[in-house]
Amino acid sequence: MVSRRYFPVSENQSRLDLFIDRMVSQRACLDYAIRQTAGMTGPVFELGLGNGRTYHHLVQHMDGRPVYVFERAVASHPDSTPPEDHVILGDVRDTLPASVERFGASASLIHADLGGHNREKNDKFARFVSPLIEPLLAPGGLMVSSDRMYFEGLTEMPLPEGAVEGRCFIYRR
Amino acid sequence: MVSRRYFPVSENQSRLDLFIDRMVSQRACLDYAIRQTAGMTGPVFELGLGNGRTYHHLVQHMDGRPVYVFERAVASHPDSTPPEDHVILGDVRDTLPASVERFGASASLIHADLGGHNREKNDKFARFVSPLIEPLLAPGGLMVSSDRMYFEGLTEMPLPEGAVEGRCFIYRR
Repeated sequence: MVSRRYFPVSENQSRLDLFIDRMVSQRACLDYAIRQTAGMTGPVFELGLGNGRTYHHLVQHMDGRPVYVFERAVASHPDSTPPEDHVILGDVRDTLPASVERFGASASLIHADLGGHNREKNDKFARFVSPLIEPLLAPGGLMVSSDRMYFEGLTEMPLPEGAVEGRCFIYRR
Repeated sequence: MVSRRYFPVSENQSRLDLFIDRMVSQRACLDYAIRQTAGMTGPVFELGLGNGRTYHHLVQHMDGRPVYVFERAVASHPDSTPPEDHVILGDVRDTLPASVERFGASASLIHADLGGHNREKNDKFARFVSPLIEPLLAPGGLMVSSDRMYFEGLTEMPLPEGAVEGRCFIYRR
């Protein structure tokens, strides 16, 4: 019933099952990526704040690296609202290219959960935004995404324990 | 994996951790409650549709019992939108009392995830809505809630495996 929209889904999975898999995978991948990049000092970029749960998790587990949030309009939970000078406000189509000038290829970790309900739209956006994200990542840096991305020079990594195949992706420069 | 976390919330839990615990507990309690009430034929009530993920899960795992959704305004994912004649539209302050007349004490399973971000508000609402829910449940029926409820004649049950203490509650008539 839902299998046409997601990959790869067993037929008796509910949308609740899928959602839990996605959240659990996201956490497993972020925890892994934080550990893997622990020696790096470059900033962390969160693309899309939403409710702020993932931002809260990133900040809570971060080792002093600054976490910048790219968002069109901040509407997060009060507990998970970043300080103003760590918000890069605007459309990522503009703010990502502008950030290449500001930060260069310095990010130690970039996380994106850009996906909406529509799988085709997500994929189209992932294709569009991948080349805007790629030049921001430092050598050795990791990119964690809920959607498959389309990078030229990054390598897709195996998922850590606890993550569900197809629900999360990790790329390394 | 989740069993080590207990209520009250440990200080190094992020909002993402809490949210995952809540969703995982909700699913564990619903699966358990569906199995426990499998011999019953009375309707299932979902209080609050939201995005529709839990409704989708209930319908997918239900054994022919009708699932009615109580909601002020349907705004769910297209895949998880109930048929019109299974939506009880309006404020639960009105629709729950009206449903006692229509259905009597016949519900085999009632699920509520009414909670917003504000704990105090949730608790206040749980106190208000508990006596409106209680007369709808059939003898032997179960009530699953993400918030602690305040029932006169129902018994709180131990949580099934996989559910995290304090993230979900089960009551039996």
